[in-house]
Amino acid sequence: MQHPLRLDQTLERHVVLVAPQVHWNTGNIGRTCLGAGARLHLIEPLGFSLDERQIKRAGLDYWHKVDLTVWPDFKDFKTRMAVADHEIALFSKSAPTCFWNMPSARRLFLIFGSETAGLPPEILTTHAEAAFAIPILPAIRCLNLSTAVGIALYESLRPIKKN
Amino acid sequence: MQHPLRLDQTLERHVVLVAPQVHWNTGNIGRTCLGAGARLHLIEPLGFSLDERQIKRAGLDYWHKVDLTVWPDFKDFKTRMAVADHEIALFSKSAPTCFWNMPSARRLFLIFGSETAGLPPEILTTHAEAAFAIPILPAIRCLNLSTAVGIALYESLRPIKKN
Repeated sequence: MQHPLRLDQTLERHVVLVAPQVHWNTGNIGRTCLGAGARLHLIEPLGFSLDERQIKRAGLDYWHKVDLTVWPDFKDFKTRMAVADHEIALFSKSAPTCFWNMPSARRLFLIFGSETAGLPPEILTTHAEAAFAIPILPAIRCLNLSTAVGIALYESLRPIKKN
Repeated sequence: MQHPLRLDQTLERHVVLVAPQVHWNTGNIGRTCLGAGARLHLIEPLGFSLDERQIKRAGLDYWHKVDLTVWPDFKDFKTRMAVADHEIALFSKSAPTCFWNMPSARRLFLIFGSETAGLPPEILTTHAEAAFAIPILPAIRCLNLSTAVGIALYESLRPIKKN
């Protein structure tokens, strides 16, 4: 089939960063979310400040337009957003399932851990079936976080999932 | 089908950056190429220096492992690599065809322009049929270059193209 050159706006996409550390990565992820029509959720603690001056210094031109929510913890986020189990896709390089197999729920939360530590074990254990990895060769330890989010988010937006 | 959690190493992937401007983007693209088993080609002029000290300052830890070739111009690259037309995928936000329709040649060159100017018109014109866009909403002008490369490269690596 020919894919149309537009995003399917009936798909509701949320990118969730748990304890992100690097300002630039989060800023670039905000830009990707804006491009893809996704919302961004940051779960505290953050490794950087979101105050106006810091944002400006980091050169995040698009930041003020990002549809952003900051949550004090993961549980609070899950409860308040009423996230169902089938709406979750966790990303971890230790997951046994390839991200090309991720679900295609109408509303989907793509959840990523910090640049240094990945996702906390308690989140990975609770949602073990929803954990996906982007395959990489052993030449690198992991992909850059903002690159991984871009790859996973656009995969989740394919108009027709063909697994 | 279940996708295996490994990359298909019979697929030969090359990322080609024409006149890249930003050190960090090229460095991050090198990391993505290493992870995906792709080679990296840079077409001069470059907006940064590749000397040892600059690389170190940019914190590109993986850079020395990247399978890299620097070419004086696009024509030289194409001739010396004996690139066939069906092995080319150009990326441009003005392309009329969605990147989910890109070809799945065994050997594929994914070609990107600079952060500021995109691909030169003469390259786009010569290979107009091979030009693809990653769809974005008008909220941003374009995706970050290293994010776009990650999205396109992993799309090109799907074990079975199912268009």
